[in-house]
Amino acid sequence: MTDVEVDFGETGLVPAVAQDAESGEVLMLAYVSPEALARTRETGLAHYYSRSRDELWQKGGSSGHVQRVAEVRVDCDADALLYRVEQEGGACHTGHRSCFYRTVDGEHVGERVFDPEAVYE
Amino acid sequence: MTDVEVDFGETGLVPAVAQDAESGEVLMLAYVSPEALARTRETGLAHYYSRSRDELWQKGGSSGHVQRVAEVRVDCDADALLYRVEQEGGACHTGHRSCFYRTVDGEHVGERVFDPEAVYE
Repeated sequence: MTDVEVDFGETGLVPAVAQDAESGEVLMLAYVSPEALARTRETGLAHYYSRSRDELWQKGGSSGHVQRVAEVRVDCDADALLYRVEQEGGACHTGHRSCFYRTVDGEHVGERVFDPEAVYE
Repeated sequence: MTDVEVDFGETGLVPAVAQDAESGEVLMLAYVSPEALARTRETGLAHYYSRSRDELWQKGGSSGHVQRVAEVRVDCDADALLYRVEQEGGACHTGHRSCFYRTVDGEHVGERVFDPEAVYE
């Protein structure tokens, strides 16, 4: 097999969807640089690139809520990624299992799994 | 309930993940403009904005492979969407059920559900 060449485009980043590999729940969407992808594949732990902080980060590096990556998929145009992960704790800094815990109508549909004040100082 | 105000940022677009509402399979990632979101909510059919063609499009408008939207979710930062859909046929123009039919290692993991030559003229 040959690696798929990911198209990082003009921005040098691609969006990556993190999905719970077991339950199928979509946990979050973040951005990935070539270095973040390389680190993810090397370590088996999800890495992303923060556009606001302008730096590589390992998910759960400070909170402990790491994502163990079972598989990295790429879409047909090779400009989006899917991380299939085992999520420790919750993916969202608000304490929810998934960042997608609300409908656009404002309905609260997600599960809160930790207290962010106890995790982030 | 009050609608969540989506942050379309400088580009005027947000990434949207389409997920099979029943199986949980992640089907595709595409971009959504304010108008595409409004049309999706009005019609119950997934609409996106094509960056390459620079136009609003309805998924399945030509192929018939529409997405009936059960729910639209928004993430914690309100800058990414999750469409939970019932997918007619396949989401991918290559004939696969999901656009994420390959691993980044080049392994073919997705299911082919239609012949694109028979669908797209």
